[in-house]
Amino acid sequence: MDYQGLLERVCHETEAFRGKGKVADYIPALGRVDPGRFGIALATVDGSLYTTGDVDKPFSIQSISKVFTLALALKQEGDQVWKRVGKEPSGHPFNSLAQLEVEQGVPRNPFINGGALVITDILLDHLPRPLEEILGFIRELAGSDSIISDEEVALSEEEKGDRNAALAHFMKSFGNIRHGVDDVLKLYFSHCAITMDCISLARAFLFLADGGRHPVTGEQVLTSSLTKRLNSLMMTSGLYNESGEFAYRVGLPSKSGVGGGIVSILPGHFSLALWGPELNACGNSLRGIEALDLFTTYSGLSVF
Amino acid sequence: MDYQGLLERVCHETEAFRGKGKVADYIPALGRVDPGRFGIALATVDGSLYTTGDVDKPFSIQSISKVFTLALALKQEGDQVWKRVGKEPSGHPFNSLAQLEVEQGVPRNPFINGGALVITDILLDHLPRPLEEILGFIRELAGSDSIISDEEVALSEEEKGDRNAALAHFMKSFGNIRHGVDDVLKLYFSHCAITMDCISLARAFLFLADGGRHPVTGEQVLTSSLTKRLNSLMMTSGLYNESGEFAYRVGLPSKSGVGGGIVSILPGHFSLALWGPELNACGNSLRGIEALDLFTTYSGLSVF
Amino acid sequence: MDYQGLLERVCHETEAFRGKGKVADYIPALGRVDPGRFGIALATVDGSLYTTGDVDKPFSIQSISKVFTLALALKQEGDQVWKRVGKEPSGHPFNSLAQLEVEQGVPRNPFINGGALVITDILLDHLPRPLEEILGFIRELAGSDSIISDEEVALSEEEKGDRNAALAHFMKSFGNIRHGVDDVLKLYFSHCAITMDCISLARAFLFLADGGRHPVTGEQVLTSSLTKRLNSLMMTSGLYNESGEFAYRVGLPSKSGVGGGIVSILPGHFSLALWGPELNACGNSLRGIEALDLFTTYSGLSVF
Amino acid sequence: MDYQGLLERVCHETEAFRGKGKVADYIPALGRVDPGRFGIALATVDGSLYTTGDVDKPFSIQSISKVFTLALALKQEGDQVWKRVGKEPSGHPFNSLAQLEVEQGVPRNPFINGGALVITDILLDHLPRPLEEILGFIRELAGSDSIISDEEVALSEEEKGDRNAALAHFMKSFGNIRHGVDDVLKLYFSHCAITMDCISLARAFLFLADGGRHPVTGEQVLTSSLTKRLNSLMMTSGLYNESGEFAYRVGLPSKSGVGGGIVSILPGHFSLALWGPELNACGNSLRGIEALDLFTTYSGLSVF
Repeated sequence: MDYQGLLERVCHETEAFRGKGKVADYIPALGRVDPGRFGIALATVDGSLYTTGDVDKPFSIQSISKVFTLALALKQEGDQVWKRVGKEPSGHPFNSLAQLEVEQGVPRNPFINGGALVITDILLDHLPRPLEEILGFIRELAGSDSIISDEEVALSEEEKGDRNAALAHFMKSFGNIRHGVDDVLKLYFSHCAITMDCISLARAFLFLADGGRHPVTGEQVLTSSLTKRLNSLMMTSGLYNESGEFAYRVGLPSKSGVGGGIVSILPGHFSLALWGPELNACGNSLRGIEALDLFTTYSGLSVF
Repeated sequence: MDYQGLLERVCHETEAFRGKGKVADYIPALGRVDPGRFGIALATVDGSLYTTGDVDKPFSIQSISKVFTLALALKQEGDQVWKRVGKEPSGHPFNSLAQLEVEQGVPRNPFINGGALVITDILLDHLPRPLEEILGFIRELAGSDSIISDEEVALSEEEKGDRNAALAHFMKSFGNIRHGVDDVLKLYFSHCAITMDCISLARAFLFLADGGRHPVTGEQVLTSSLTKRLNSLMMTSGLYNESGEFAYRVGLPSKSGVGGGIVSILPGHFSLALWGPELNACGNSLRGIEALDLFTTYSGLSVF
Repeated sequence: MDYQGLLERVCHETEAFRGKGKVADYIPALGRVDPGRFGIALATVDGSLYTTGDVDKPFSIQSISKVFTLALALKQEGDQVWKRVGKEPSGHPFNSLAQLEVEQGVPRNPFINGGALVITDILLDHLPRPLEEILGFIRELAGSDSIISDEEVALSEEEKGDRNAALAHFMKSFGNIRHGVDDVLKLYFSHCAITMDCISLARAFLFLADGGRHPVTGEQVLTSSLTKRLNSLMMTSGLYNESGEFAYRVGLPSKSGVGGGIVSILPGHFSLALWGPELNACGNSLRGIEALDLFTTYSGLSVF
Repeated sequence: MDYQGLLERVCHETEAFRGKGKVADYIPALGRVDPGRFGIALATVDGSLYTTGDVDKPFSIQSISKVFTLALALKQEGDQVWKRVGKEPSGHPFNSLAQLEVEQGVPRNPFINGGALVITDILLDHLPRPLEEILGFIRELAGSDSIISDEEVALSEEEKGDRNAALAHFMKSFGNIRHGVDDVLKLYFSHCAITMDCISLARAFLFLADGGRHPVTGEQVLTSSLTKRLNSLMMTSGLYNESGEFAYRVGLPSKSGVGGGIVSILPGHFSLALWGPELNACGNSLRGIEALDLFTTYSGLSVF
C-alpha cells in the first residue's frame, strides 16, 4: 500500500473543506489556533512513518487523552473499571446530565465527559503524582520527553468548567466520584490540556495496532484482550454523537478531540493521527473526517 | 484455524448456561420452542462449512431479518435511505418512543423497531410483491427453496402489535411512514416471522464476509462500500441495547433476534450463525453470547 | 359587581390583540373560521347572564369537551377513574409520548390527549350509545337541544389522527386502553368536534360554580366533593403547558380548546365562556387570556 | 366555623397514621426528630389563633423557606424574577437535572431546588447581609425575635449537598447563576435550616390570606396582585411531585418541607401551619396530608 501517496492525495483533495468548520473557541487559548492547519502522520507496526502537512506542530489533544487515562485505569484495575462506567454508546451529547440521571450516576461509557471524570477519579486512587505519571506514560509511548500539559488551557477550562463540575457533583451525589470534586476536575482539565503533535500521537497509539505491544519499545502496554476491547470502545463511542456515522463512513476505531485531532487504528497495520482544528457541528475535525473517508475509500482499508 | 474444534469446544463449555435465560414468550408460537436447543454453523468464504449442534432446525429469525430488508433497501435506494433513518446507536430500548419524539420521527438506526418499520415502508415503494421478493432474495442467498414466513407467528405478532402500531402511527404523524400503517405492519411482522436454520443463515450472510459478493453464487449482492457500511451498522447497533458490551466482548459485526439467533461476520473470513433460544435481559441469546465470547477469546479472532 | 361593564371593557381593551395569534389550521374545517371573532358570556349562579360580542356563534369546543367526558366518567366510576389516569400537571406537551413511556402507559392527567383517550375508553364501558349520551348530557346542562357534533371536523381529525392513534396503541400495549383503538378514536374525535356557542357553554358549566348542582335545572350533577376536585384539575392542568402561567395571571379554574374557547369558573359566583380563535404558541386563545387577565385584575376576583 | 373543634377532630382521627411514614434522615440532624410529633396552628385574618398538639416545638422549615425568599425577591424585582425562573408545574422530581437540561438552565418554578437556588442568587444581588435580612423579614412577619437558622443542619446539608451543587453549577454554565456557587449554596442551606414552630409559621404566612397585608402589623408585605400570584404558585407547585394530587384532595394553596411542615392558605380567611415529621414517598408529611384532607372534607372549605 502506497501510504505516502494516499496521505498526500487525501490532504490535497480535502483542501476545499478549509473554512467550512469552526475552531473551538469556548476558551481563548483554543480559539487562538490557526484554523488552516492540517496534517496527517501514519505509523506502521513495522516501524515506518509517513507524514504530510503540519505534523510537528503541537496541539491540544483534549478528549484524545481519555484513551490514555482509560488505558492506565485498565492497567490498574482491569475489568473492575466497568463497575463504575458503562460500555454502551451514549445516544446523547457528550456532556448530558439527563442520561446520567436515568442511569443513577453511572455514565454510559468512558469517553463521554462523565465517564472520563470517573476514570480520572479512579486514577487518583492509584497514582501518587497523577499528572506526572500520565505524562510519563504518554512520553514513553511516544518516545518524546517534550510532551507537556498546557497550564493556561487547563486554567481556562477550569474557569469555564461549570458543566463538568455539575457532572462531577452529580455523580458524587450517587457515590460514583470518591475524591474531592476540585481534585478530580483539576486532574481532568490538566490531562485534556496535554499538547502533542501528529507524529507523537501516531507513535503513542501504535500499541493499539499491535495487540497491545508497543512495536518500538517492545513493552506489552495492555494484554491483547484489553487492546481489542479498547479498540471496540473507540469504534462504538470514539467520536461523540457522530460515532455511528463515522463507523459507517470510515470503519476504523478512532478517538477525536475538540482541539481538532483524530487518531485512528487499523489493527495489525497502523495508527494514524491527524489534526485539523476546524470542527463540524458534532465537535469533530470537519476536514479530518473527510480525509479519513477518502483514505478508506481509496485504499479499501477498514476493519469491516 | 481449526474451526470445527473451536465450535465443538465452545458449544461444550457453554452447556452450563442452559436454563439461565428465558425463552421469548410474548406470543405463544415463540414460547413453544424447546429452550435447550443450541447450534452453531460457520461458513467460510472459501466454501467450507463447519457445524455443531442443532444447525438444521428452523427457528424464527425475527430481527435478523432487518439485515436482509436493509440490504434490499440499500440495493434500491443506496444512501438515500439515510434521509429517513439515522445511523447512530440508540442508547434506548429497541421500541422506545421517547427518542423518536425528540428526534421528530426519524429513528436512530435501521435495527431498532422504528427504523426497521421505515425500511419496510421503503420496500413497499419498490417491491410489487414484497414478501415474495424478500423471501426470494433470502432463498437465493441461502441456496435453499424451503425458507418460508410462519403465518401463525406473523398473525400472533400482529395481535400483540400495539407497540409497533404506536411507533408506525407516530412516525406517520411526522410524515416518515408513507404507506398505510396496516400494510407496513403486515409486511414487517411477516418478514420477522421468517424461519431459517443455522446453516441457511450462515450461507445467506456470507456475502457480508466477502466484500458484498456471494462466494457461492458469485453474485455481487452489494457494492464493497455498502457492505462495509452494513457491517459497521451491525457492529454499533446490532445487539439492541447491548451492542457496546457485545463489541467489547466479541468484536464481530453481528445481528441478533428474539428467536435466539445471532449472526456474526469476520470480514474476509467467515459468517457464523448460532441459535440458542434462551435470552438474557437485553433480549439476546444468553448462551450464544457466551459462546461467541469464548470463540473470539480462544481464537484471537475479531476485527480489532 | 358590574359584570356587564367589565365584559365590555375587557373586550374593548383587548382589540389590539386581534391578528397577533394564529387560528388552528391542522385540519381545514378549523382553519376556515373567521379569526376576528370574539365573545364572552358570563352566567351567574343566581341566574343572570351577561354577554358581549360573538356569543351565539357555535364553534368547535375541542378539548373543552374533556371536562364533560371526565364529569361523566366520574359520575359512573367515581375515584376508580384514577387507577388509570393521574392527577399531576404534565410538564410536557399535550400529546407527548415520552412521559407516557416513563410512566408505563398511565397518562399524567385527564386533560392531556392520552388521559382523555383513557376517559373515552372508560365511557365505552358504560354508555351503550356513547356519543348520543354525551350530547344528551351536554344538552341538558346547556338547556339547548341544538348542540351537535360536526361530522366533517370529526372525520378530518381522524384522517390527521396518527399522533392520537400512536398514543392509543401505546397505552393499549400497556393494557390501559381496553376497547378497539378505532372505536376509542372515533368517539374521541366526535366529542372533540362538538360545537357550542359561548352562552351554551357558560350555562353548561354553571354546575361547577355551584357545588355540583345545576342552578337552573336543580339537578345535582356531581357531588360537591367531586365538583371541587374537577375544579382543582382545571386549575392545575386546564390550559395545556401554560397552566401554571395562567393560574398565576388569572387564578380561575379553566379549560381551553384549540377551537379558541376558554371556560372559567369562580366557585360560588359564576361560569364564564369566551371564544377567540386566534391561538398563542401554547394553543390557547391569545386574546382570551389577555381578556381574562384584565377581567381578574380589574375586578380583583380569583380563587386566591 | 368551629375551627378549634375541627383541628382537634382531624388531629384525633389521623392518629392511626403514626408510624406509617418515614422521617427524613439524609442528614443526621433531621433524623433525630421524634417521629410522633404532630401539631396544627390556624391563624385567622381577624386575629384569632386555634391550636392543637405540638405547636410550640420548633422544627426545620426546609422548603417552606422558599415562600419567604420568593416573596423577598418579588418585593425587590417584581415580575422581573420570571426572566430567570418559570411558573409551570414540574412533572419531575424536585431535584431533577434532566428537565433543566431540556430547558437550558431555566428551572420550571421557584419551588423546585433549581428555582429556589436562582431566587437565592437574586437575593444576593439585593441583600447586603442576606441571611440576617431573611431572618429579619420572617421574624417581623411572625412577631417573634427567636427565629434562627440551625447551623448544624445547614452544615450537614452542605456536606451532603452534591446534588444541589450539581444543579447550581449546571445553571451557572447557562449563565443563570451569577454569584459564586459556594455563596449561593451557603445561603440556600442556611435559609432551609431555619427553625420555626407551627404558631410562628401560621402567623408569618397570614399576609397571604389577607391580600398581602399583614393583619397584625398592618404592613402591606406584597401587593394584592403579587399575593394572588404567590398563592397560585403554591397551588400548582407547592407539594413537589404531589401538587396535583394535593390540589385534588385538599384544594388550598400550600407549601411543604421535608422537615414535615405544611402551610396552607384560605384566602380571606386563615393561614394554617402543621407539623408531622413522618413523610410519604413524595417527601410530604404523611399524616399532615390526611389531616388537611379531613379538614377540608368536614368543613367544605377550599378555594374551589
